[in-house]
Amino acid sequence: MSSAPSGQPALLVQKFGGSSLATAERIRAAAARVVDSAASGRPVIVVVSAMGDTTDELIELAYKVSPRPNERELDLLLSTGETVSATLMAMALHDLDQPAVSLTAAQAGIRSTNVFTKARITDIHPERIFAELRRGKVVIVTGFQGVTEEQDVATLGRGGSDTTAVALACALGAERCDILTDVEGIYTADPRVVPNARKVAEIGYEEMLELAQLGARVMHPRAVELAELHAMPILVSSSFSAASGTLIHRLPNGDAPMPMEIRKNVRGIAHDTDVARITLVRVPDRPGIAAAIFQPLADANISVDTIAQSSGADGTTDLSFTVSGSSLQRAMEITSQTAPGIEADNVDAADDLAKVSIVGTGMQSAPGYAARMFGALASASINISIISTSDIKITCVVPRDRAEDAVRVLHSAFELDRDD
Amino acid sequence: MSSAPSGQPALLVQKFGGSSLATAERIRAAAARVVDSAASGRPVIVVVSAMGDTTDELIELAYKVSPRPNERELDLLLSTGETVSATLMAMALHDLDQPAVSLTAAQAGIRSTNVFTKARITDIHPERIFAELRRGKVVIVTGFQGVTEEQDVATLGRGGSDTTAVALACALGAERCDILTDVEGIYTADPRVVPNARKVAEIGYEEMLELAQLGARVMHPRAVELAELHAMPILVSSSFSAASGTLIHRLPNGDAPMPMEIRKNVRGIAHDTDVARITLVRVPDRPGIAAAIFQPLADANISVDTIAQSSGADGTTDLSFTVSGSSLQRAMEITSQTAPGIEADNVDAADDLAKVSIVGTGMQSAPGYAARMFGALASASINISIISTSDIKITCVVPRDRAEDAVRVLHSAFELDRDD
Repeated sequence: MSSAPSGQPALLVQKFGGSSLATAERIRAAAARVVDSAASGRPVIVVVSAMGDTTDELIELAYKVSPRPNERELDLLLSTGETVSATLMAMALHDLDQPAVSLTAAQAGIRSTNVFTKARITDIHPERIFAELRRGKVVIVTGFQGVTEEQDVATLGRGGSDTTAVALACALGAERCDILTDVEGIYTADPRVVPNARKVAEIGYEEMLELAQLGARVMHPRAVELAELHAMPILVSSSFSAASGTLIHRLPNGDAPMPMEIRKNVRGIAHDTDVARITLVRVPDRPGIAAAIFQPLADANISVDTIAQSSGADGTTDLSFTVSGSSLQRAMEITSQTAPGIEADNVDAADDLAKVSIVGTGMQSAPGYAARMFGALASASINISIISTSDIKITCVVPRDRAEDAVRVLHSAFELDRDD
Repeated sequence: MSSAPSGQPALLVQKFGGSSLATAERIRAAAARVVDSAASGRPVIVVVSAMGDTTDELIELAYKVSPRPNERELDLLLSTGETVSATLMAMALHDLDQPAVSLTAAQAGIRSTNVFTKARITDIHPERIFAELRRGKVVIVTGFQGVTEEQDVATLGRGGSDTTAVALACALGAERCDILTDVEGIYTADPRVVPNARKVAEIGYEEMLELAQLGARVMHPRAVELAELHAMPILVSSSFSAASGTLIHRLPNGDAPMPMEIRKNVRGIAHDTDVARITLVRVPDRPGIAAAIFQPLADANISVDTIAQSSGADGTTDLSFTVSGSSLQRAMEITSQTAPGIEADNVDAADDLAKVSIVGTGMQSAPGYAARMFGALASASINISIISTSDIKITCVVPRDRAEDAVRVLHSAFELDRDD
């Protein structure tokens, strides 16, 4: 990736989500914010999502035409959503006397793999972007998409516009990547579930990554990972208010755990109610089993989430894992085909589950947190079906209809409603 | 332009208009027709317009965002309409087990000038098209657009999808270009106005060109011109019925006039109700005046239609011309600026007019036709404000509210309801 022309003030990348661009009026309001940013004299690159529910509407249209839309065609179809909002944003900027130009992924030089519907950005050739910036233009880039070697359009998967924004910010040496959305920042828990949840002023990449992966829908986890890799600061704020947002960056002491006496280790509570579980019952406990189970799922591009295995005394084990609700059917088909070959007794599934997680650096060095989490859930009679831990999070799979209770109980148990 | 790979059966190009693609169901029906054509073993290229009223809806959206949408952005915005229908057509073909791929103008190698909203195709680089055809695929190309040297998308103006289809047919050496639309062919007059209008089985390019220019909205005049230049046969038929259409081609004796004893010279009656007139009153009758008036209009990309000038006895002349209703305001602004410099007394305009024309080869060699036309209009008390003639047509500008009467009177006066 090349860097910005020298001697220029640092670039700013600003990404607007679909709800911030849902109507002509909102596009004009977003354009006014871009003009404010450009007034600082910094070159500005705007990344846009499709307007409102456009992507869902296009998917619906595709399924009206075909029960199984071809993925290469689906990607080109969906890419029109971002092209529409990019051109409208450019028109709105022109009206505010701000020179601007919209660029598709191909025009912006965003190259990707050719895995349609789940492409990855490979590199960015920003010649056209820099040429337009040198002409004093705000450059608007369609998010969510790249162009393959064959010049086909491939989309980056849901939330891919965040990834486009961060990738551009990193490749072009931007000062910061702004994510403008419909929430004011990152909260200690979902404010719709926990009314006294607090907005955090800053958060480390690792913590944000766990929150993002655990259903905090403000940012796509891939985008957070990419930002961490390049130490790119991200400011998440609302496009509808002037309130200060949340800065995601390398925390002053790094993301390393701080002594628990200094600050609370639990940073926030995440939850995700789109969880299904598959369990392989009484699998022989021998090497190669996990690969036999998960490779076919990976080949089918199914994201497997929490995995938990509990060894039994008789040389067999029950192995459970979670997938999203929409993947359950295909995951069950594939796993049922795998099961006989590895001599599993049978395959069991449930789709009425949720995940609830506590996230924070340094939890592993303070084992009391797990106990406190389990205790709090027990006190509310919430059953835990799978437990999974990492350096900075503990996740419990619970019944979906108890998920919100679980979030509230944990928010209170870890005193997140009090100031740091 | 390169030609088709040798040894292949001749290509067929089929263009579907917006009304033929207005719903998911119609797209599936159109796909079934494409499969029938492909079953002949001939390589098929499909050119699509945007679905139904999509283009108008996108224009409306643009004007909601901006009172004067930037034209470069407007073109990229509008181009998404054809991309949507092209991808849906590809999906529908896949469902019918017909391999297919949709290509944007950039992917299909359709290069154009960078006159946004009114671009012209400059050349076609069909490498990708041929590669996909060799893979046994039906290739779907987005109509109405080209890509400039700077890789920007430019649209070809209204009706441009016809031009795309004919240009591809010519460049790729197709056997024929099919235009599938919502009418069954070319009629002796608009069947909504003249119930006993007849469909003609064949028509020459010149006659079709005049009909197209005069408001017969079946085909865009540019597309007819291009087809004539390359002697490309065009079959116009309905995508909703199996009825035989109208073949536009070089007539057996060429387009040259045939003796009037052999066949009727008037081929059809065309009319256009979107006509406005501008008159420069008492312009000094000296060289250079016409250029002074029309160059600024041409620079502003305003199409001037019928022009008529009547010399007076006092060294001045009244000069009238027609433009489309939507161009009237800008045309008046420009002409009012021109008028003082050429010492015109004043500028007058009217926007409640229509054109009615009789079209047919050989009329100039049979002058009685003009007299018969004026007589028929006079007998119906229809006032003529401008008269203009060419080799194969006579046009009268009449009050808009009498246009349909004029068409019926002329259809009857020239006995077009009788068989040849």
